[in-house]
Amino acid sequence: MVSGEEVRAEFTRIGSRLVAEHLVGANFGNMSARPEDDGFFITRTGSYLDDPGEPVYAPMFGEVPKGASSEWRVHRAVYQNTRHRAIVHAHPPYAVAASLMLDEVVPHDSEGKMFCPLIPIAHGEPGTEELAEDIAECLALAPLCIARGHGTFAAGKTLEEGYLFTSLGEHACRVLSLTRSFQ
Amino acid sequence: MVSGEEVRAEFTRIGSRLVAEHLVGANFGNMSARPEDDGFFITRTGSYLDDPGEPVYAPMFGEVPKGASSEWRVHRAVYQNTRHRAIVHAHPPYAVAASLMLDEVVPHDSEGKMFCPLIPIAHGEPGTEELAEDIAECLALAPLCIARGHGTFAAGKTLEEGYLFTSLGEHACRVLSLTRSFQ
Amino acid sequence: MVSGEEVRAEFTRIGSRLVAEHLVGANFGNMSARPEDDGFFITRTGSYLDDPGEPVYAPMFGEVPKGASSEWRVHRAVYQNTRHRAIVHAHPPYAVAASLMLDEVVPHDSEGKMFCPLIPIAHGEPGTEELAEDIAECLALAPLCIARGHGTFAAGKTLEEGYLFTSLGEHACRVLSLTRSFQ
Amino acid sequence: MVSGEEVRAEFTRIGSRLVAEHLVGANFGNMSARPEDDGFFITRTGSYLDDPGEPVYAPMFGEVPKGASSEWRVHRAVYQNTRHRAIVHAHPPYAVAASLMLDEVVPHDSEGKMFCPLIPIAHGEPGTEELAEDIAECLALAPLCIARGHGTFAAGKTLEEGYLFTSLGEHACRVLSLTRSFQ
Repeated sequence: MVSGEEVRAEFTRIGSRLVAEHLVGANFGNMSARPEDDGFFITRTGSYLDDPGEPVYAPMFGEVPKGASSEWRVHRAVYQNTRHRAIVHAHPPYAVAASLMLDEVVPHDSEGKMFCPLIPIAHGEPGTEELAEDIAECLALAPLCIARGHGTFAAGKTLEEGYLFTSLGEHACRVLSLTRSFQ
Repeated sequence: MVSGEEVRAEFTRIGSRLVAEHLVGANFGNMSARPEDDGFFITRTGSYLDDPGEPVYAPMFGEVPKGASSEWRVHRAVYQNTRHRAIVHAHPPYAVAASLMLDEVVPHDSEGKMFCPLIPIAHGEPGTEELAEDIAECLALAPLCIARGHGTFAAGKTLEEGYLFTSLGEHACRVLSLTRSFQ
Repeated sequence: MVSGEEVRAEFTRIGSRLVAEHLVGANFGNMSARPEDDGFFITRTGSYLDDPGEPVYAPMFGEVPKGASSEWRVHRAVYQNTRHRAIVHAHPPYAVAASLMLDEVVPHDSEGKMFCPLIPIAHGEPGTEELAEDIAECLALAPLCIARGHGTFAAGKTLEEGYLFTSLGEHACRVLSLTRSFQ
Repeated sequence: MVSGEEVRAEFTRIGSRLVAEHLVGANFGNMSARPEDDGFFITRTGSYLDDPGEPVYAPMFGEVPKGASSEWRVHRAVYQNTRHRAIVHAHPPYAVAASLMLDEVVPHDSEGKMFCPLIPIAHGEPGTEELAEDIAECLALAPLCIARGHGTFAAGKTLEEGYLFTSLGEHACRVLSLTRSFQ
């Protein structure tokens, strides 16, 4: 059994890195972790990722407590359809811009090519089942996708993995963008 | 009755986030909060938003103490003409650049589309009644506007709301700018 | 008489802001202050602006101690030819890029237009008398200039003023650059 | 004899500056130092440069402990073929983008022109002997090179020198990129 204290400390550690790296601004973005099968911990609605307070525990089926991030549908759909154990959602600006202009992101940098050679774009309005399902489909096949015009969803065994893929995806999009200035 | 200590702590908390997120540099920008009807607290002229010291109390009518930010006219005009209770003024670079080139900003990212689908540009020289009135008009209809070539003014029920709209507006402008590199 | 401890504290305070705002990287840049007529305090060669240690005291004429920043010639020339009491030299990337492409920088943002409507470009190789003299000439007329391809020199009554003009100049150049993406 | 405690403190000091300056994100990058001839200290695989923990000691020949960064081959090849005593590997975005578009980087800023007038691009897949050898060849002649699409390798007498060249190289590439927006 994982203690609430451990979960909160890990949320804070990873959230602080996401904010310091400018992968998310203000109180945007959210994170969740599913240490056991019957539910998952998710950040509170409106909380800052670098100061998340106590995460909310959401069951895999049925009603979700009011305090949970409004994007809990995406997180639950991913857990129901994949083997991932943690999800990080951020708003990195190059990735968001790329998602508005490209059908999929094909990294040119070595890390992108090695770890996420094709970053899919998910479609649907934030908060809808349509988006939740498209993201779950994407994350069944890849560790990272970008919700069009909205932000990244990255998943893995741990919050740290989700963070690493978020950083890697933004780096890949930033490099793609900057290459244009060297043409 | 709100204590001066509470006001100061909240100014510091929000100011520190504005600076860390690079939404304002050096000692530019200012903030105010109007917890009660007869006046408002405003940052001191020349103070750093992340180290604001004691805010100055300005009445809704009549003379304003010398220490107050030189942009107190904008803040008072907004409080006189709207129901907002807090205002954040910053100099985010993408928003300032956008305001020089566009007649209004129409965000393409989901948060921008949802929370500020049209960001108006206010006109007038800094410090003038003309600018103060145009900003007050803009903020009667929208939570955020950009003073042309100058910076954002964002308003809401709390300083935190003002900060969130500032961050959201800069994100929207940054995404608009970066999409160009993916054409 | 100003104490060494006060000087050091102010160097650290201003240097930390310059670094946090990304106006200078690594151990580049230098600063000086001239609290009294017969000499000035200058950062040590190779020191980090956010961790400058004890500044070196340099006389207005004659030999300068070995530990002083290698750019002491510029600082001394400015003090000999102007009434400034402090100088900040940084390497802000937009300002450096602008200096390579423009004959002078004409800001479009309101702060730039108000406080430094024309930012001159100084010429000469780093470390030479030629550059020192050109910068001194520029700073006799303006609070801020850019040494071509090298970095900003900003001067004023205090280190803080030097920092404010550095930040303001980089902001002006960044806004000029970003406007291009909104064309 | 250098103590493990001293090595660790210096790794942390330099790593923290690399991260704060955004020269590397997440847990990417690695560093090593060779205080004595028979081996070198290298960051652990997967460690964060700003929180590197205990570095691993790798011998100059023969098997390398499992915990060592997967890029130990590059570090060893550089030490075997040059007189460098420390190496910093980071993923600075402008340098990576430049390496994908240019055959070599020729800085236009004064520091780049003075300290690394030609930054070579090394070729080969990450982790291969081919890349390790090409980087060793580059660093025999220059303090800094960029592995194409991957990141910078900078070397010198100390970790600090490696960091300074990393910062300088990214600054040079950023300035090159930004000049385009002032055309």
